[in-house]
Amino acid sequence: MLKLISELNRKLIDLKKAILTPGKRVHKQFQEDMENVLINIVTGKTNNEKTTSVFSPGKQSSFLGISPLKIDEINREGRPFRVAIEGNIGAGKSTCIDYFKRFPSVETYGEPIDWWRNVDGDNLLELLYTDIDKWISVFQSYVQLTRLKVQTSKPQNQNTTVQIFERSIQNNRFCFLEHAYRKGSLNSADYAVLDQWYRWIRSNVDINLDLIVYLRTSPEVVYERVKSRNRPEESGLQFQYLVDLHESHEKWLMSNDERFNNIPLLVLDGNQPISEMEKQYKIFEEKIIGHETKGLKRADSTDLSKAKKNLKMDF
Amino acid sequence: MLKLISELNRKLIDLKKAILTPGKRVHKQFQEDMENVLINIVTGKTNNEKTTSVFSPGKQSSFLGISPLKIDEINREGRPFRVAIEGNIGAGKSTCIDYFKRFPSVETYGEPIDWWRNVDGDNLLELLYTDIDKWISVFQSYVQLTRLKVQTSKPQNQNTTVQIFERSIQNNRFCFLEHAYRKGSLNSADYAVLDQWYRWIRSNVDINLDLIVYLRTSPEVVYERVKSRNRPEESGLQFQYLVDLHESHEKWLMSNDERFNNIPLLVLDGNQPISEMEKQYKIFEEKIIGHETKGLKRADSTDLSKAKKNLKMDF
Repeated sequence: MLKLISELNRKLIDLKKAILTPGKRVHKQFQEDMENVLINIVTGKTNNEKTTSVFSPGKQSSFLGISPLKIDEINREGRPFRVAIEGNIGAGKSTCIDYFKRFPSVETYGEPIDWWRNVDGDNLLELLYTDIDKWISVFQSYVQLTRLKVQTSKPQNQNTTVQIFERSIQNNRFCFLEHAYRKGSLNSADYAVLDQWYRWIRSNVDINLDLIVYLRTSPEVVYERVKSRNRPEESGLQFQYLVDLHESHEKWLMSNDERFNNIPLLVLDGNQPISEMEKQYKIFEEKIIGHETKGLKRADSTDLSKAKKNLKMDF
Repeated sequence: MLKLISELNRKLIDLKKAILTPGKRVHKQFQEDMENVLINIVTGKTNNEKTTSVFSPGKQSSFLGISPLKIDEINREGRPFRVAIEGNIGAGKSTCIDYFKRFPSVETYGEPIDWWRNVDGDNLLELLYTDIDKWISVFQSYVQLTRLKVQTSKPQNQNTTVQIFERSIQNNRFCFLEHAYRKGSLNSADYAVLDQWYRWIRSNVDINLDLIVYLRTSPEVVYERVKSRNRPEESGLQFQYLVDLHESHEKWLMSNDERFNNIPLLVLDGNQPISEMEKQYKIFEEKIIGHETKGLKRADSTDLSKAKKNLKMDF
């Protein structure tokens, strides 16, 4: 079994490399084989029954899989299982969170936008829109602080075994901060200070996530969604910004950069309509909130072997 | 004894108030009485032998005393006794630190200026001088981070029982940050974010100091010292800046603001020449590094009662 897992992990890495090499075409049969293997691993199925996942390299593709990190590398020390829902604007993060809200042992946390709108009386989000170059540094610092607070918060209900977050402090570091630096809004000194803060936090505070659920979408699909849902703060959103953010998510979650991919990752096809997405959530429910459905109370380190078994992440 | 202590604490507070009330003249005999009482408390003497302390309200005064905080409110959890040396530019902080370097169980930490000069290649200190309004926010954020790292660092030698720091993260928050905000270099949003970071740190990390030694000086004296020592980076220093910094130190350390004065405080007359200062250090040696001289190894919480006795901070 271990040999098979090791072989699969190697193939998964090859596949990721192939996807990420521009212009390289991946053999269709190999794609399909790998996809089925990965589906079987994450769902625990032995047949070849397909899910709604579609894999189409060369354009904005969706991909279903889970990363090979050993889950027992994470020391949870009695805290709940932490899940971050990641994805572009319009990827369906809120809908996903709403789906999991119904479970009594799950607590969900939206993005702390209200805090960004009122920092002791100042609206940092508004300031950012008026002059991004002037305000991006302090805004990023505050996003880092507020995400740190959210992600390390104790659950309100002591029976909560799973915490689900809309985005994460890791997202802020590796997706939005990288994006602002690449685009030139953040200068190198601001970037370096924010990076050093992140390193300090990571080394001194348990900000570990136990699972990232990446709602992978194409910029075209989310652009249409954003236009049709007509939220006032998104009215000025440019298509190019969604393309940039998509690329930032891809670089963070789909690359082989060791700094980035040390968290178990479940990639779902976010281009599907809501009804199809809910079918995917149903399929992966046990992976995401398995602690709860199997009746495990507040997980601690002694529960890890049971949890691993429960989650079938035994590679 | 407890009643006497309580009475003395009340008088100390009255005296502080009197000193801080502009234009108010304090009765000379009361001053001298209080001064002697305070000297006796901190030195443990029962006679009225005077030290070099001089108290002269109405101009930049020096004042010798120690604050009434109960030392057992601090939970040190096995770490060394932490002392911060505070004071204006030219107050003699380096000389003080050099004095205590000689003790084998003391480790000393200068200000992390080299880090500020090289943040992954950028010289933040230089950038700050070129455009203070543009760079003060990220500079303050980095000072906060580097002081946090220094102040929570493990000693290199496992026999170290006392860590002595040149300034502190508390200084940064209550002296330099306040100063930058009052002077208008820091806007309210930057100030609020840095303040919220400080609050998070204070609530989540042990940054407690066990003693602050305040080398209290007059701006006139330190201005002369700074001019004569001729350090290149201090060549452009204005007298008014030293006055402002003096006031910031006074507001922080000599006020009755509860946010500020929760750390045991030893105030020494920093206007004296080096030879006189060294006499003061000799007198207060046991207060500052008593753990070492009494042969206490690495202090832990069970040592606290002994340490308290040793330090004679039993009020």
